[in-house]
Amino acid sequence: MSDKKFPLTGYTLPLTPEGKSSLVEPPPWYYGGEVTQVLFRTDAARATELIPAPLEIGPDPGQGIVWFVEWVSVSESNPDLAFINPERAIYRECLVMIQCSFQGEPGYIVPYIWVDNDFTLMRGFVQGWPKKMARIYLTKFSELNPKIGGKRVGAKMKGICEAHGERIVEGSLVFTRRAEPSDLPSLKFYLMRHFPNIEDASKPAVHEIVISEVSDVRVADIWAGEAELKFFESAFEEVAALAPTEMLGGFSHNMGLTITGGRVIHSYR
Amino acid sequence: MSDKKFPLTGYTLPLTPEGKSSLVEPPPWYYGGEVTQVLFRTDAARATELIPAPLEIGPDPGQGIVWFVEWVSVSESNPDLAFINPERAIYRECLVMIQCSFQGEPGYIVPYIWVDNDFTLMRGFVQGWPKKMARIYLTKFSELNPKIGGKRVGAKMKGICEAHGERIVEGSLVFTRRAEPSDLPSLKFYLMRHFPNIEDASKPAVHEIVISEVSDVRVADIWAGEAELKFFESAFEEVAALAPTEMLGGFSHNMGLTITGGRVIHSYR
Amino acid sequence: MSDKKFPLTGYTLPLTPEGKSSLVEPPPWYYGGEVTQVLFRTDAARATELIPAPLEIGPDPGQGIVWFVEWVSVSESNPDLAFINPERAIYRECLVMIQCSFQGEPGYIVPYIWVDNDFTLMRGFVQGWPKKMARIYLTKFSELNPKIGGKRVGAKMKGICEAHGERIVEGSLVFTRRAEPSDLPSLKFYLMRHFPNIEDASKPAVHEIVISEVSDVRVADIWAGEAELKFFESAFEEVAALAPTEMLGGFSHNMGLTITGGRVIHSYR
Amino acid sequence: MSDKKFPLTGYTLPLTPEGKSSLVEPPPWYYGGEVTQVLFRTDAARATELIPAPLEIGPDPGQGIVWFVEWVSVSESNPDLAFINPERAIYRECLVMIQCSFQGEPGYIVPYIWVDNDFTLMRGFVQGWPKKMARIYLTKFSELNPKIGGKRVGAKMKGICEAHGERIVEGSLVFTRRAEPSDLPSLKFYLMRHFPNIEDASKPAVHEIVISEVSDVRVADIWAGEAELKFFESAFEEVAALAPTEMLGGFSHNMGLTITGGRVIHSYR
Repeated sequence: MSDKKFPLTGYTLPLTPEGKSSLVEPPPWYYGGEVTQVLFRTDAARATELIPAPLEIGPDPGQGIVWFVEWVSVSESNPDLAFINPERAIYRECLVMIQCSFQGEPGYIVPYIWVDNDFTLMRGFVQGWPKKMARIYLTKFSELNPKIGGKRVGAKMKGICEAHGERIVEGSLVFTRRAEPSDLPSLKFYLMRHFPNIEDASKPAVHEIVISEVSDVRVADIWAGEAELKFFESAFEEVAALAPTEMLGGFSHNMGLTITGGRVIHSYR
Repeated sequence: MSDKKFPLTGYTLPLTPEGKSSLVEPPPWYYGGEVTQVLFRTDAARATELIPAPLEIGPDPGQGIVWFVEWVSVSESNPDLAFINPERAIYRECLVMIQCSFQGEPGYIVPYIWVDNDFTLMRGFVQGWPKKMARIYLTKFSELNPKIGGKRVGAKMKGICEAHGERIVEGSLVFTRRAEPSDLPSLKFYLMRHFPNIEDASKPAVHEIVISEVSDVRVADIWAGEAELKFFESAFEEVAALAPTEMLGGFSHNMGLTITGGRVIHSYR
Repeated sequence: MSDKKFPLTGYTLPLTPEGKSSLVEPPPWYYGGEVTQVLFRTDAARATELIPAPLEIGPDPGQGIVWFVEWVSVSESNPDLAFINPERAIYRECLVMIQCSFQGEPGYIVPYIWVDNDFTLMRGFVQGWPKKMARIYLTKFSELNPKIGGKRVGAKMKGICEAHGERIVEGSLVFTRRAEPSDLPSLKFYLMRHFPNIEDASKPAVHEIVISEVSDVRVADIWAGEAELKFFESAFEEVAALAPTEMLGGFSHNMGLTITGGRVIHSYR
Repeated sequence: MSDKKFPLTGYTLPLTPEGKSSLVEPPPWYYGGEVTQVLFRTDAARATELIPAPLEIGPDPGQGIVWFVEWVSVSESNPDLAFINPERAIYRECLVMIQCSFQGEPGYIVPYIWVDNDFTLMRGFVQGWPKKMARIYLTKFSELNPKIGGKRVGAKMKGICEAHGERIVEGSLVFTRRAEPSDLPSLKFYLMRHFPNIEDASKPAVHEIVISEVSDVRVADIWAGEAELKFFESAFEEVAALAPTEMLGGFSHNMGLTITGGRVIHSYR
């Protein structure tokens, strides 16, 4: 809080005398994840509906990516969190991104994303990731399990995302070869921050496009493969409108990064 | 969205072409709940630390209430929700309130509140309820269960709130008599809305005190009783600072109400 | 334990010095539930496949019932359990039964049943209910919720059962009239107890047909209605083979009962 | 089923025409896990209470081990399970073992064990592991997370086990050095299979001591460290009676193994 007289502290609610109750700790946030990426193309018209001005259609209209990730994350203010209580440091995620561009620079919007822990839900809203809660299941390899084994050509990976009793997304990857960092799609995120006004439900209090400030990106143990992807109909989701028309392969890799915040590039208010 | 040119819709993120993906539906919101209230007094100094100006200490410094509730809620825009998918309409809640006043009018702040479903977590942040996720367990009576029976003098009720592997709150009530609506504490909520700025973590984008706009309040089947309450130490919560110094009884009742939004009475920005 | 020299006690594992760790408490078990029944007819050949001798096809081949229930249960040895910790006393259930008969007496087998708590899973295996874990969502009515209201003609009820990220069963009921206890189907359960041998996976250690010993059955607040039912395909379930060919209405009611144990009517060993 | 005339199949309930509904698949079962072991000594008298004849006190009375594990497991009959649906192949476990011996051969009983998935709960009961459901949280390392990093001297690991709203076990390890397979405690399990009779609750239908048949044991990436351990009081657990009186260090390692079944060494019936 900038106001020195305000007696409570916290990056988000709850604001308290000590600030340790805050649902989200302040940035920088540090991430390490096991990522499965599935690349696809969908109907360009349906993808375009999701891209509001001043964002524009990207160079490859209808191109998208789904990520399934198991993340472990901590913050600058509590770097020991993964030890203090692992429950507050681990979450699983299913993320749908659609290519767009801004002033000629290609990137991705994220129309849909599901996670399985509350702190990351709110940390997402603060950054402009439109998170909802789900249960997310990811294949785990095991070098020493006599029937499963480790990552290798032919290894198979699946991600499943279920929410409110409905299967929402299912993606899979069959490993075909080791790959290089340069094989991975380049990512830049154009995120939408939005928070309602409480006096007038038709007007947001916050509504802006943000570029996520990401640094320290490192990748390792990269595999390329053949991918499949299904989006399912739901009473509470619209992702099925992005049904894949073409699969573009996929990748499995480890990843680390730091998010220090974001930079507002457009406000709708 | 007030801007007619903006192509996406939703009360909260995700904003989409149809608006059905939005994590929260717009108000009015309609609630029905089975409420257990536990009244207590805590150290006035610790309670006062939680009350930021322009709110002031109330007429009974250190007085507080804990609610355990199972709610069923729907919105104006989706009144059939409890049938379409009950998972999106039911949640359990543990709410801690501390007496304060504003311009001479007594009411309650809500420093801590836990719920067990994502839509209500975000709906809480929009209104100024500082919600976090927990698992909440509540005694259920049963007229026809041969050993449990229904509400009656001597019936016992317990609420338990657990988060991140820690028991946080435990409250209980032993029914002593039927009670009247006029026996229940009068409630007015002074809530704090807060949403971070993404460019500068030290400055909020939204920070204001709101009076919740509540109508259609009805109560029924009211019982009074003797209460107990425990707050537990936690690495991620500060509620233990509000340890009860005196118990003031409690109530169990059904309740219905409508929340139409809120009115901002102070902005800290 | 009958052997007085055996130093550990418990109705099930874990067996311990005090016996309080046991996953299941010994019978009698006392139940109170809010039950939604959906009656249907399926292909008689598929139903018959599920009925092993000495059980026989019943008088109405292919007739079945699905129950969705929220139960509260305690045992003779711990009648205060619903107060001590409600988590150990409440569970939700989705139960599929198929008509059969034994020596001319009609009843039901239970080929599939899902619950959401561990103690009832094991208590089911002990009695011959073939329980698996699921998440089960049930419409909750609310007299005081301004948009939901209580049970009444036209009220709508839904039950959803999801397991391992798949929707498994969905049933619904639209209330058309109040009904009498005599309108409800008469129930007698022929259950199959089965527990593997550990030295030879092809031979069970326990395999027998049991009549559940149920007493103190009481019902109240009975409504009849029009029903719908869907079973979904799954990689881990076979219930979809019982797809309804005809709906036979349904009921919603409260219910209480006591289970004191079971009587073995046939052993397969 | 050995009886060719019995028309249903399955290793456990539910028994069905295809056998794919069975909660547990038949052995052999293949495991791969990330194991944290914490070695301790407790009061020998309390440990001894848990050791029923013909098992005897081991050479180091009161010595015990707690394991926290994330397992991935599949069976011979469904080796692709980790891909088909990861939810059916992954679980977390907290296991308490106490040294004993049988006919002069030292080994361990397992008085308490918690897991977080239904298939392994029942697979445990079949083998004699007295499993109950819990939520289990384990530190996850991350080479690429800028603040967490991988396994190394000084790395810290924690396991937390919570059930029915109570923290039950908490163990931690600070890595001090790499270690060899020969440093790890040698394990032989004496397990108790037990399944109640339904006609007489005082007599079990199955009650026997089993030696688990384990093969293909491999370990890798072994670290030794300094350990801490806490058992907490609970209304439903007795593990607090085994409070550590001395810590004996611990290990973190990967592990693979096959369980083909068990051999009965004593029957109590």
